[in-house]
Amino acid sequence: MSEIKDENLEEQEVKETIQEESEQPKEVVEEVDELTLAKQQIEEEQDKLIRLRADFENYKRRVQLDKAADYKYRAQSVLTDILPVLDNFERALAVETTSEEAASLVKGVDMVYRTLLEAVKKEGLEAIEAEGVAFDPNFHQAVMQEQDDSKESGVVLQELQKGYKLKDRVLRPSMVKVNE
Amino acid sequence: MSEIKDENLEEQEVKETIQEESEQPKEVVEEVDELTLAKQQIEEEQDKLIRLRADFENYKRRVQLDKAADYKYRAQSVLTDILPVLDNFERALAVETTSEEAASLVKGVDMVYRTLLEAVKKEGLEAIEAEGVAFDPNFHQAVMQEQDDSKESGVVLQELQKGYKLKDRVLRPSMVKVNE
Repeated sequence: MSEIKDENLEEQEVKETIQEESEQPKEVVEEVDELTLAKQQIEEEQDKLIRLRADFENYKRRVQLDKAADYKYRAQSVLTDILPVLDNFERALAVETTSEEAASLVKGVDMVYRTLLEAVKKEGLEAIEAEGVAFDPNFHQAVMQEQDDSKESGVVLQELQKGYKLKDRVLRPSMVKVNE
Repeated sequence: MSEIKDENLEEQEVKETIQEESEQPKEVVEEVDELTLAKQQIEEEQDKLIRLRADFENYKRRVQLDKAADYKYRAQSVLTDILPVLDNFERALAVETTSEEAASLVKGVDMVYRTLLEAVKKEGLEAIEAEGVAFDPNFHQAVMQEQDDSKESGVVLQELQKGYKLKDRVLRPSMVKVNE
């Protein structure tokens, strides 16, 4: 007989040996065999349970992460739609007034603007720093270049449109003029 | 022997009977017994698996429902903070102007207001109907009463502060004056 044999063959052989030696009726041997199978099945069922538990735990962990991300950026869509409102406010407030009536109106509008800024800030909206800082392609979009030797190369010379981020996520980059 | 005995006792007895009758060696009987136990254990493991699968499915279903609700009302906190901004806009726009400059400014403010209204409407914010409709405690808060015999009893006579809902959820009820 070859020295190399697989486990099943070995088992088969052991079973036959028992049968020959003990001369027990065939049914008992079958029951012993059934026990081996049953034990295998127990192990299989336990393995399935372990795997399913692991899947469940992974799923729960993923759900928690998703939920946290959804929560963090929950206001993103409405804030994105509000950016043009902030732009319009800035434009309206930049108007030069000639009468007291108009000046008082602009003052009122400025208060409304501040209330809105407060509300969106509370939700995590922040204006991106631009003028005077080093150009950063993650936050700034260069739409013009100029050469100003009195300032460092690569610095933002002027902000043409304000950029905004929601927490660590850029909603709209600042449109800027950069020093060559 | 007593007629009342627990299951374990009964089992024990059956095992002993088999041993006596068949006169097999003790080990084999033990193996047969082990098989019964193994089969029980298989059933138990399968039960555990079925229960865990059911738990997993329920969890997934709950997560989906939670996610849908979170998504539906995701803008609630920022919109709630924006309600005073809408109030301030209405107040600013109600001002009577005497000069052309002021009138033109108010026109600009009105445009900013409309942009903001558009943004929050897109997210599901709606003004609650009040004046002229029947008082509904789910949407209206009665802060004043008056008797106007020319109108139906229980009808909203005047809206003192606008109410808003986010989809089917009231963010702030309308403050109203009701007909007695």
